[in-house]
Amino acid sequence: MLILGLDPSLSCTGWGIVRSDGARLSHVAHGQVPTDPKAPMAERLHHLHDAIAAVIGAHSPDRAAVEEVFVNKNPQSTLKLAQARGAVLAACGQASLPVSEHAARLVKKAVVGTGAAEKQQVQAMLKILLPGVKIEGADAADALAVAIADAHLGGR
Amino acid sequence: MLILGLDPSLSCTGWGIVRSDGARLSHVAHGQVPTDPKAPMAERLHHLHDAIAAVIGAHSPDRAAVEEVFVNKNPQSTLKLAQARGAVLAACGQASLPVSEHAARLVKKAVVGTGAAEKQQVQAMLKILLPGVKIEGADAADALAVAIADAHLGGR
Repeated sequence: MLILGLDPSLSCTGWGIVRSDGARLSHVAHGQVPTDPKAPMAERLHHLHDAIAAVIGAHSPDRAAVEEVFVNKNPQSTLKLAQARGAVLAACGQASLPVSEHAARLVKKAVVGTGAAEKQQVQAMLKILLPGVKIEGADAADALAVAIADAHLGGR
Repeated sequence: MLILGLDPSLSCTGWGIVRSDGARLSHVAHGQVPTDPKAPMAERLHHLHDAIAAVIGAHSPDRAAVEEVFVNKNPQSTLKLAQARGAVLAACGQASLPVSEHAARLVKKAVVGTGAAEKQQVQAMLKILLPGVKIEGADAADALAVAIADAHLGGR
């Protein structure tokens, strides 16, 4: 079972793929898709859509997972995030991938053991859960954490 | 100059195309893209992306226009709307269409003459501005209004 974790954001969307064989977990690939902040919004959204469609095409994951959106105090930030999420999820829909949404708290709990974990604790646990993998980029790390959580939670 | 007006929404996205020749305005086409409320989110977003990409492919508009998002009192509604918008704008980006955003107030002002116009006034003016056109659907009407406003505002 290949699981694609996604951490959508307009400036840089992280993705990470893990293989889940029952209780065993292994790293497959991860990366980040930055967009040009000077490019028009529609172009940036297309770039995200296209890049995630290419990742899906290259790896053929069985399912995908994202964190539930935390509705930000800043409506403009929420708007940008949700638009990026829309473009990225449309790419999942194109490939008929089932997509699960997990609360941030559940992702932390699945990876670290507590829903109140700090970002650094999550990243430290990623190194233990996916030994030997050099994870470059905080967005890719977040995406891998969602994929791992989804493996634990069984795509629900 | 062919202008594609868009009224993105998850449940039903409206679109409308007008031709603007200097001061003259004419109707080209319009329609609505409903999505299945029982389908998964990613599938619905893909359907919107795909349908708008098909409209762009069929009509080759020169530019596109949307209303600025009014950040709703209901964060979940704003989220759904923004995700739909992200999928639709990604389709515009795919075709390298320039996309303008206009405040709802400016759209009403351009179509009716006052920013405080009611929905019915906008629809009544559409019948006058695009004579002989039977507009089916409130979302398509809103999309045509944005396209007309964009023609007046010159894509700014």
